[in-house]
Amino acid sequence: MTPSTLDALIEALRCLPGVGPKSAQRMAYHLLQRDQRGAARLAGALAKALEVLRHCARCNTFTEDEICQRCANPQRDPRLLCVVEMPSDLAMMEQTHAFKGMYYVLMGRMSPLDGIGPRELKLEKLVERATDGVVEEVILATNFTNEGEVTAHTVSELMRARGLKVSRIARGVPVGGELEHTDIGTIAQALIERRSV
Amino acid sequence: MTPSTLDALIEALRCLPGVGPKSAQRMAYHLLQRDQRGAARLAGALAKALEVLRHCARCNTFTEDEICQRCANPQRDPRLLCVVEMPSDLAMMEQTHAFKGMYYVLMGRMSPLDGIGPRELKLEKLVERATDGVVEEVILATNFTNEGEVTAHTVSELMRARGLKVSRIARGVPVGGELEHTDIGTIAQALIERRSV
Repeated sequence: MTPSTLDALIEALRCLPGVGPKSAQRMAYHLLQRDQRGAARLAGALAKALEVLRHCARCNTFTEDEICQRCANPQRDPRLLCVVEMPSDLAMMEQTHAFKGMYYVLMGRMSPLDGIGPRELKLEKLVERATDGVVEEVILATNFTNEGEVTAHTVSELMRARGLKVSRIARGVPVGGELEHTDIGTIAQALIERRSV
Repeated sequence: MTPSTLDALIEALRCLPGVGPKSAQRMAYHLLQRDQRGAARLAGALAKALEVLRHCARCNTFTEDEICQRCANPQRDPRLLCVVEMPSDLAMMEQTHAFKGMYYVLMGRMSPLDGIGPRELKLEKLVERATDGVVEEVILATNFTNEGEVTAHTVSELMRARGLKVSRIARGVPVGGELEHTDIGTIAQALIERRSV
């Protein structure tokens, strides 16, 4: 007896990651009962995003243009190419103000268990970008998770095979971190990757 | 440098209950990168639901008609009116096949801390429904949470003041439940509300 329009909305909400049947129901009730303006705004934002957003032809991040503003900025160093997993990682890197090169956003990570390999990640697009004749060094800034490490390894092999210099951002004890509160895996890595001073 | 359309989508997703900035960002990336069809379906389902869904004039649940199919069903007993918090509670009641009367869906619960009182719950609509001259007994089936109990208490006072018989569904040890695994509050209530056999 539940109206089919409501069922359709609940079902549609399940396309959101981490949203199961119960959450979807709760979300639908909330939107219809308490926030119809928010629901209308969401419907519009989705439609607009699907219509205008695409991938930057150079760095692969979301943009409304053929080439995003960052890639079109002549102030940035085109010899350095930093590879990150997601646009949120790029945003974190930018907040450091420590990098003035270019980026490539994978829009994901290798995950053999989920069937995401080099082809699904479209790594050939990264290879094409990195071999433009201007890029000299590829800096791997994928996460230090298992999947991020696998991704970094795969990308580094592809890059080295094409004669590019490859580097990985450093692992170690966080700035301000105390050994007592750092996991032993990190301490072990910090020891192995120690630098002479 | 994040495109504003993407920001607008992330912001719009935050109208969903339980979705903070990080989840909204993850959802937006997922929809744009991995499930554009799901995103389009969601945009359509939201727009359709906002357009066609409204509240049943009798039981207040979501429906596409002036009066929902359940309220229009002459097979149901119009002398019994069961008050529940949400449509999902109504669905649970129906699954028991133990009730053949009518329903009233509050679409919420009293929550003084959140500023949701009798007025916000539109309890005057329930009073009007219950005093149609046909309803003889109002059965309170709100949750046994603090807020559900406050709601039941408020509704029962309103109903009794109008000469209606009011009842509350029973509290106690769940069917199939073992005392060892039942919380002591429930056991205490089961003891107080014991029935002679």
